[in-house]
Amino acid sequence: MSSNLGITPRDKNYSDWYNELVVKADLADYSAVRGCMVIKPHGYALWENMQRALDDMFKATGHVNAYFPLFIPKSFFEKEAEHVEGFAKECAIVTHHRLTPGPDGKGLIPDPNAKLEEELIIRPTSETVIWNTYKKWIQSYRDLPLLINQWANVVRWEMRTRLFLRTAEFLWQEGHTAHATYDEAEQEALTILEVYRAFAEEWMGVPVLTGIKTDHEKFAGAHHTYCIEALTQDLRCIQAGTSHHLGQNFAKAFDVQFQSAEGKLEYVYATSWGVSTRLVGTLIMAHSDDKGFVCPPRLAPVQVAIVPMGRDDETRAKTYAAADELAAHLHACHYHGAPVRVKVDKREKESPGFKYNDWELHGACIRVELGPRDLEAGTCVVVRRDSTEKITMPLGNGNTCPLICGELADIQHDIYQKALEFREANTHRVDTWEEFEKLFEGEGGPGFVLAHWDGTTETEEAITDKTKATIRCIPLTPLDPHDGKPGKCIFTGKPSKQRVVFAKAY
Amino acid sequence: MSSNLGITPRDKNYSDWYNELVVKADLADYSAVRGCMVIKPHGYALWENMQRALDDMFKATGHVNAYFPLFIPKSFFEKEAEHVEGFAKECAIVTHHRLTPGPDGKGLIPDPNAKLEEELIIRPTSETVIWNTYKKWIQSYRDLPLLINQWANVVRWEMRTRLFLRTAEFLWQEGHTAHATYDEAEQEALTILEVYRAFAEEWMGVPVLTGIKTDHEKFAGAHHTYCIEALTQDLRCIQAGTSHHLGQNFAKAFDVQFQSAEGKLEYVYATSWGVSTRLVGTLIMAHSDDKGFVCPPRLAPVQVAIVPMGRDDETRAKTYAAADELAAHLHACHYHGAPVRVKVDKREKESPGFKYNDWELHGACIRVELGPRDLEAGTCVVVRRDSTEKITMPLGNGNTCPLICGELADIQHDIYQKALEFREANTHRVDTWEEFEKLFEGEGGPGFVLAHWDGTTETEEAITDKTKATIRCIPLTPLDPHDGKPGKCIFTGKPSKQRVVFAKAY
Repeated sequence: MSSNLGITPRDKNYSDWYNELVVKADLADYSAVRGCMVIKPHGYALWENMQRALDDMFKATGHVNAYFPLFIPKSFFEKEAEHVEGFAKECAIVTHHRLTPGPDGKGLIPDPNAKLEEELIIRPTSETVIWNTYKKWIQSYRDLPLLINQWANVVRWEMRTRLFLRTAEFLWQEGHTAHATYDEAEQEALTILEVYRAFAEEWMGVPVLTGIKTDHEKFAGAHHTYCIEALTQDLRCIQAGTSHHLGQNFAKAFDVQFQSAEGKLEYVYATSWGVSTRLVGTLIMAHSDDKGFVCPPRLAPVQVAIVPMGRDDETRAKTYAAADELAAHLHACHYHGAPVRVKVDKREKESPGFKYNDWELHGACIRVELGPRDLEAGTCVVVRRDSTEKITMPLGNGNTCPLICGELADIQHDIYQKALEFREANTHRVDTWEEFEKLFEGEGGPGFVLAHWDGTTETEEAITDKTKATIRCIPLTPLDPHDGKPGKCIFTGKPSKQRVVFAKAY
Repeated sequence: MSSNLGITPRDKNYSDWYNELVVKADLADYSAVRGCMVIKPHGYALWENMQRALDDMFKATGHVNAYFPLFIPKSFFEKEAEHVEGFAKECAIVTHHRLTPGPDGKGLIPDPNAKLEEELIIRPTSETVIWNTYKKWIQSYRDLPLLINQWANVVRWEMRTRLFLRTAEFLWQEGHTAHATYDEAEQEALTILEVYRAFAEEWMGVPVLTGIKTDHEKFAGAHHTYCIEALTQDLRCIQAGTSHHLGQNFAKAFDVQFQSAEGKLEYVYATSWGVSTRLVGTLIMAHSDDKGFVCPPRLAPVQVAIVPMGRDDETRAKTYAAADELAAHLHACHYHGAPVRVKVDKREKESPGFKYNDWELHGACIRVELGPRDLEAGTCVVVRRDSTEKITMPLGNGNTCPLICGELADIQHDIYQKALEFREANTHRVDTWEEFEKLFEGEGGPGFVLAHWDGTTETEEAITDKTKATIRCIPLTPLDPHDGKPGKCIFTGKPSKQRVVFAKAY
């Protein structure tokens, strides 16, 4: 194995493993701009596959896309009291609109004559600028509901950044909907939560807990927040998506009222919801291994990598031709509604061994090895990325493609199943503070810890102070029926309605 | 016709016509942020269709997508001398990364303690930040070519803005490629020019001139610039896309060298190329009329609008059912490789007349009228948006769908043909300065004026000073063989190699 492919093993240093994998598997790279990443073509292809699947799901549930400005006037943030606390802090502020040569004639400085009257904030999220616009669009109940999504970049000036998981600029989608009633907005928030759950589990192969955030953890400006929470291999938790019922908060802040069917003026109800390139980080952390990236087939940029071999030109001509033919047939085949994404690796300077490692690093779901002996035998060797299982298959269009597509479906299933078993093995129910504290000792996380909590922010903060554990969510449906029954708070002993989910969060 | 649908006719005030059409046809809206627009769902659906078609064409020519940071460190602009002149002037400058309460305790101000060490510019174009990254990615000829595109937002602080045509923030794609040789980069620039031409003509139905820019008009930092240029109905010219051969300028500015197959260190050759949401403005200006938006079917957000009618519930139940059935069959049908995009208009409060006007305003390519008498007769009335032609068609799945798809294909063809004839009728060949000056008198434009030019920037500037005409391009292939023959400069009488294209530009 070529040393430049090597990455730190997970059990040696999980954090190094992740950072090295992201760069070496060509998913993203560091940029010259503090906290901003470059999403490399291989990583962007993955994001495009995610976008396409999510966008189809949004459209199937009645949503349309639009685009709102990057800039938010400073004064907009001052309108919603909780929102400003949450979002107008660490942000990128535009103060000038022109560069001019410096006083020494060298270099460029912001032109003092081109200072903006009002500073503009690069959107950290777009509720304010969108609700300022909705005010123009909504007059009557007939204008409702508005079911709009946008795909955009946003900026939050994070101090400690991490490729995909936490970057100053990131890509996301943000849905912003407007409704005539509380119940309709509530239904919308739950519809999207279900879209997010289905996407995480059925596409990403990542089992998630769905739940509601505590008041302490909810979105700044929301009535309440729903979320999906995933587990990483180092037993921490990642918030992978949120869906907020905003109540009438933004409608009131931006004075958006509508005339009801009965002729009354009422404030509009709102939701907002988003997932981001953080999903890419979540995906990597969930399935990848010490050899590199492991990706579920439905989202993989390369589903099948074919490596034809041969010591001389004549042999290679044959295996290359067979590889091209198989690739063409696979491309014409459909796996999960799209042509199979296949690459033929004809790099002449690299050995087969190097190529095998390289495609494992880059997360091709299946590798097909095609040597002269395989051709003679009328077979090819198929190697699964997830299980490393080797399967000898008959080589012939009628046979090979359906078998390979079948393997892809199996991989999709098995990846999810493995992650689910991992989560179940790392979900604990704890009833004493001693046990609880012990689980959260040390650097890593203990997985998900289901424990009783008295429902107060005071207790929540005290527990976090002592253990770094946070309440990730109050499950919507108990994982186990017993979890939904009353008990006593792990910390105060006061009554608790149900177990909630504690974890160390990314 | 409902008065709120009315827009100013083109011959009364073309500029008002355009602005009103964009807003009333729900393509875009003004925002609270100076110079920035909101792209409304109907307009964004059009942009999505454009994106999908272009993205497929880029991928078919070997390109992949990636994403680079929104921010560019100020110092990056100082590295390429011409580029800084062109792009580091009117731009959005980020100077702080935190808001804090003002000294009076009211409102928010940029935190003086959170001033950036180096200001960040919101990208007006990404050559600098991308070439700074390519330096890391390119060492050997084996790393070349890099054929990368990104879909992104950019900001140029324009003083006079216009929805879609010129906005401070706009959406675009920017391709940035790296090559081992001048010839390969040149071929790339021309390949993309052809992609742009094909997209404009075959998808947008907009005939374009392809040519090379004069040194005076080329991209700041380019070796030379290719472009596509379209004509508007008010006889001005719109630069609709550009493809730049950058030579080694950016490679030298960012010190990007590669080891050639022969082991020599050489600077990399580059291209960059882009089209933007300006294409939407170009499309509107090319085909729309006094009733509203006219859109070629391949890109139309709504290809077929079905208006079922009936005075009472019982009748409506029948026409609605027939409309839904036709819509389902059309959706299952394919026009140009995608399901037909169809809407059934069941708004109960609006009259059929209102709906007809409304769909004309919004640019549905075909309207299907379905009344009780049509049902009885087993027919429906199909009205073409482009020609207003009414066609009575048999109503029945086997018949109607292929006939409607045939009409869509005819509309696509006819829209282009009409625009082509319009351009030909408004292309002039002029050989005297008197004629030339006369054509450019007054507010409007004269269309395209093909005239001889001596090839100097001095003459070019003098002509623009006197007439506001600019050289839009030097055609790659003469429109007429005679255009390619030598002559005498219209202004100086000095020798000229060929006719060039003058026009008033948007």
